[in-house]
Amino acid sequence: MSDTGHRVLIHYCSQCRWMLRASWTAQELLTTFDGDIAEVVLKPGTGGIFEVRVDDQLIWSRKDEGRFPELSELKQKLRDIIDPQRDLGHSDKKT
Amino acid sequence: MSDTGHRVLIHYCSQCRWMLRASWTAQELLTTFDGDIAEVVLKPGTGGIFEVRVDDQLIWSRKDEGRFPELSELKQKLRDIIDPQRDLGHSDKKT
Repeated sequence: MSDTGHRVLIHYCSQCRWMLRASWTAQELLTTFDGDIAEVVLKPGTGGIFEVRVDDQLIWSRKDEGRFPELSELKQKLRDIIDPQRDLGHSDKKT
Repeated sequence: MSDTGHRVLIHYCSQCRWMLRASWTAQELLTTFDGDIAEVVLKPGTGGIFEVRVDDQLIWSRKDEGRFPELSELKQKLRDIIDPQRDLGHSDKKT
């Protein structure tokens, strides 16, 4: 669990006061994917950025999508990369 | 702010259920040192670990100290490394 596993990066706009949102997202991912995530990086940024990357692969960009992710769809995207066979339970239902 | 600044690593025991404590610590440091921290890394571990590093320099080890840090003393240690002249206000008072 310590040095294996995936690296999640949450790059958020601190000027927009999205730190708590980013931190909450980190908590949710660390809870759901306990044992599969090596680390979650909280990275302050500017200019309205809210991006989530897994192993440097972009899985969410607020600029591209025009909105924040639902946590369930973020978890689905993460799951599809790190453990495609996993059933996420209620997070796999349509939002 | 984006690619300059310091890297804080919080390595915590997830089996001990210290993720929320680690995340809360991250939120506090990101709030107090807004603009000076490039990123905070939340790293799950095992075996009762709770360590905080700044730029790979260990500033807290629960094993060494026998306890969790007060947030004020953690901020003082971080301040001493990244901006020794800064007054932390009420966090500079004795706890």
